[in-house]
Amino acid sequence: MTPFGTVGLIARKGNRSIVESVVTLELFLSGRNVSIVVETSTAAMLPRCAHRVEDRKALGELCDLLIVVGGDGSLLGVARDLAASQVPVIGINRGGLGFLADIAPNQIEAKIGAVLDGEYFVDSRFMLDASVFRRGKRIGGSCALNDVVVHAGTMSRMMEFALHIDDKFVYDQRSDGLIVATPTGSTAYALSAGGPIMHPSLDAIVVVPMFPHTLTSRPLVVPSASAITIVIGPSTSMNPQVSCDSQVDIGVETGDEIRIHKYAHALQLLYPREHSFYEACRSKLDWATRLGGRVKND
Amino acid sequence: MTPFGTVGLIARKGNRSIVESVVTLELFLSGRNVSIVVETSTAAMLPRCAHRVEDRKALGELCDLLIVVGGDGSLLGVARDLAASQVPVIGINRGGLGFLADIAPNQIEAKIGAVLDGEYFVDSRFMLDASVFRRGKRIGGSCALNDVVVHAGTMSRMMEFALHIDDKFVYDQRSDGLIVATPTGSTAYALSAGGPIMHPSLDAIVVVPMFPHTLTSRPLVVPSASAITIVIGPSTSMNPQVSCDSQVDIGVETGDEIRIHKYAHALQLLYPREHSFYEACRSKLDWATRLGGRVKND
Amino acid sequence: MTPFGTVGLIARKGNRSIVESVVTLELFLSGRNVSIVVETSTAAMLPRCAHRVEDRKALGELCDLLIVVGGDGSLLGVARDLAASQVPVIGINRGGLGFLADIAPNQIEAKIGAVLDGEYFVDSRFMLDASVFRRGKRIGGSCALNDVVVHAGTMSRMMEFALHIDDKFVYDQRSDGLIVATPTGSTAYALSAGGPIMHPSLDAIVVVPMFPHTLTSRPLVVPSASAITIVIGPSTSMNPQVSCDSQVDIGVETGDEIRIHKYAHALQLLYPREHSFYEACRSKLDWATRLGGRVKND
Amino acid sequence: MTPFGTVGLIARKGNRSIVESVVTLELFLSGRNVSIVVETSTAAMLPRCAHRVEDRKALGELCDLLIVVGGDGSLLGVARDLAASQVPVIGINRGGLGFLADIAPNQIEAKIGAVLDGEYFVDSRFMLDASVFRRGKRIGGSCALNDVVVHAGTMSRMMEFALHIDDKFVYDQRSDGLIVATPTGSTAYALSAGGPIMHPSLDAIVVVPMFPHTLTSRPLVVPSASAITIVIGPSTSMNPQVSCDSQVDIGVETGDEIRIHKYAHALQLLYPREHSFYEACRSKLDWATRLGGRVKND
Repeated sequence: MTPFGTVGLIARKGNRSIVESVVTLELFLSGRNVSIVVETSTAAMLPRCAHRVEDRKALGELCDLLIVVGGDGSLLGVARDLAASQVPVIGINRGGLGFLADIAPNQIEAKIGAVLDGEYFVDSRFMLDASVFRRGKRIGGSCALNDVVVHAGTMSRMMEFALHIDDKFVYDQRSDGLIVATPTGSTAYALSAGGPIMHPSLDAIVVVPMFPHTLTSRPLVVPSASAITIVIGPSTSMNPQVSCDSQVDIGVETGDEIRIHKYAHALQLLYPREHSFYEACRSKLDWATRLGGRVKND
Repeated sequence: MTPFGTVGLIARKGNRSIVESVVTLELFLSGRNVSIVVETSTAAMLPRCAHRVEDRKALGELCDLLIVVGGDGSLLGVARDLAASQVPVIGINRGGLGFLADIAPNQIEAKIGAVLDGEYFVDSRFMLDASVFRRGKRIGGSCALNDVVVHAGTMSRMMEFALHIDDKFVYDQRSDGLIVATPTGSTAYALSAGGPIMHPSLDAIVVVPMFPHTLTSRPLVVPSASAITIVIGPSTSMNPQVSCDSQVDIGVETGDEIRIHKYAHALQLLYPREHSFYEACRSKLDWATRLGGRVKND
Repeated sequence: MTPFGTVGLIARKGNRSIVESVVTLELFLSGRNVSIVVETSTAAMLPRCAHRVEDRKALGELCDLLIVVGGDGSLLGVARDLAASQVPVIGINRGGLGFLADIAPNQIEAKIGAVLDGEYFVDSRFMLDASVFRRGKRIGGSCALNDVVVHAGTMSRMMEFALHIDDKFVYDQRSDGLIVATPTGSTAYALSAGGPIMHPSLDAIVVVPMFPHTLTSRPLVVPSASAITIVIGPSTSMNPQVSCDSQVDIGVETGDEIRIHKYAHALQLLYPREHSFYEACRSKLDWATRLGGRVKND
Repeated sequence: MTPFGTVGLIARKGNRSIVESVVTLELFLSGRNVSIVVETSTAAMLPRCAHRVEDRKALGELCDLLIVVGGDGSLLGVARDLAASQVPVIGINRGGLGFLADIAPNQIEAKIGAVLDGEYFVDSRFMLDASVFRRGKRIGGSCALNDVVVHAGTMSRMMEFALHIDDKFVYDQRSDGLIVATPTGSTAYALSAGGPIMHPSLDAIVVVPMFPHTLTSRPLVVPSASAITIVIGPSTSMNPQVSCDSQVDIGVETGDEIRIHKYAHALQLLYPREHSFYEACRSKLDWATRLGGRVKND
């Protein structure tokens, strides 16, 4: 008996290779004793979809497992939309590196089969909650699996802001912005900006300045229970924004306060049993590549 | 006899402190045996301006020396507009750090006096020329004293481009953009992005990736005679731009080619005699600040 | 009534300024209702020491509070020697930056007085335990407050090693060595090597490669409960060493295994009430210093 | 007619694979119309060496071309020993990455054949000259192709020194040391330490601090004609050293002055015609490897 009686199917809108994987997946699941629910836009990819079709929100209520076909980007969207449902999510990688979605298209039968047979590992990934306050009133917000980025809107323009953590003043900064990332996000944008890699099990948030005007700025790692507050400074002349996972944007202005803390719900990320974070780093970050040329006996 | 018979006066539009320095300067120069030409917008700052008033372009033709009141940003604008005139430029710092404009407001009489007496040092600073080509046709361009930045337009969005140097393929890159900087610009934006400091006398250009997707990307220093070509890639979904000195923006699109090379004219930057680049680094980059805590006999 | 009936006095062997602070401190404490115990080598600094004189180990057993005169380096030594005693430690800074020892010499009376009156804050700082195993047998080891550094011994020489965390293979690395640091050590050597700043309350360890041969290596932050194992590789031609806090060195050789985990005892670091980590960063890392030169209206 | 009538053969002392390439090379050269001179220690690798055997120094006088079998390390040694002879050098890579020695063992016949036929490109690589002065007297020195490293001797120990460039004071620094590198060395140790990549044709030297105590220290690029002077500071408690190419070490002490400038002779590095620096970077530094996970439509 599979622990997952009802399986939801969500795919990124996309090209032929996406459709191909969705079809493969639907065929495979049809041969297993599971109910299938297909997200509305995904159903359009199937020539004739004989399964229940529902919108994304309903999938969170109906399903025991969500299979996402796409890349890490697709998984980020599903995480923000459905993490609160606590339904576990697994990704078929039809995108880039696939830190989150790491099942290769040609492994669908083997890996998803094993998962349905009960061979899997659930990785609970905490998320962030970002809210924007203007004159004390919440005007917007979103959760994020990877990161909340407060930035100048236009590149190569600078903004000014004050950072407080747990009501303690940290610094005033002039920079292009600030990345606040979870361990999950530490291998994404924050890493490009010079942040450290954080093990997914770490209860910590990293704050990474983007092109800071002070040479002494460094990435800062704080407990995940920290309350992070960013107040947009007066000399910010552009259209600063808050971006959640680089997918949801909220415009902010001078005086606005962005409050970031741990989101109430963690994403239940499901991996086939053999998943290893360090193995993912080795293969996806290419840790094996080497410089040369300074050994005495070379 | 001063080598500078006609002196041009240009000030950043601005606050009371700017006006104050302009008035000080005008008073001081009036007591010296020089003709004064005031830029149109600057003349408006003087209660009653008894001098010849001209637009910026005319100042390049009429003057033997240009005095700019503002910060490095004001000097960047004057450099792009008037470097071709080869008239030497000196800056009174009413802005931030003042790497370029390094005369403090309270030194106006002493330092400008000495310069008029012939005590000065001319630092020739090469500039960049950036042109955008669409389907083989030049559609825009600008020169730049600090840097040419090709970027995704919107922050925390990625672009894709190919870099060629001297017609040799360097790499395809996915990143937020690329900074191409002169030695003068190496202490500005490029430094925030991890580029090296380059001595102003160095005949070199540095190419600094912005938040690259590849961990192996590094700043690259090439001879200033290099022809740098950036071709905007196909998957660029945003509104990529070319920014010159973060002041002039040109929109680009997929397939556009940005060609960057040494500009035909160098800025003649005038410093009081005692100017030292390393001294500027020590005071402005705070090279004296120290970490601590790992000496045995501490 | 002071909570600290017996106060121990430890000073770095040193110059006149150290002696001066020890004398000041002894005079001040003599006027308060506390018993004083002076470490043997410190007693030699006092013209005529009327107090009980004991070796360092005994101080851990006899005292309720240890006052250390020196710099962060002196405090590191006391931490390794006496953290197990759980006696709280406070530092008078006669060294460099003073992240740990942050009472200035001219504040002795005010700050130590307040502490004796019960105004203080105890910061529990976890430490590391490093043991070296050769063919399965422990041949040496030490605890460390800041960091355990495994390095090639001679600089600009390379070593090769394998890193495992919690029995999972992380990577083989060729580099000058590896820094394994606590949050306390994250503002010391690890920071020079590009590691992030970690808040002292964070339950995490950072692993920072030293001049790695692979451009893809990055600092890695893992939970403080992690078991870190480093196995010295075969092609290591030099005299590799394990350094604890850059003060205790243990020679290692090919095949040796260095096992690092959280030390059983945390240092009880005592601060005057108003201590703030971010304030320390601002003043000691000079977070206020700024670059300049790319604002439009500069 | 080959432009290289007399060919010298130098190999790293080594394993079977080295001997194999030396034998292949000797066989191949014997079939061409060239005189062969074998370095003494290399001759020992050949079963019966029928060619003239000479020490390394003599090879510089007798040969028109030197073929080195080994890695970049072997080429560094030959460069220091024989660059003054101006005999062009080509490397067969039997070591690591092979930035300098880039002919693969299985290409010996094809590539060396082409070179003998006149198809090659000579890359002139400038070198550094380092001299140590004690109380005004030169006590030692060496040239270097990659870098001159002034360091604390023992790792994770700090040294103090003053840096002057062209008789101008740059800074006092506390760090583990300083790397002074040529463009050739910019892809070796200096790169691990955070230095930029410099195109081999660039007339510049990069100065890279090693684990500096100041967060504001950055790599500094200066013209290759610069005179760089490092004076060892008073508080240096260890056994500081000057290392040339990490192969030649000279002990220094407090007050010693290390003077570094361009060496009088450049290495004539010979490449098969199609050599491209950027191609070498792409393949050896793995510029193609990518991060992932933040594209909207991923």
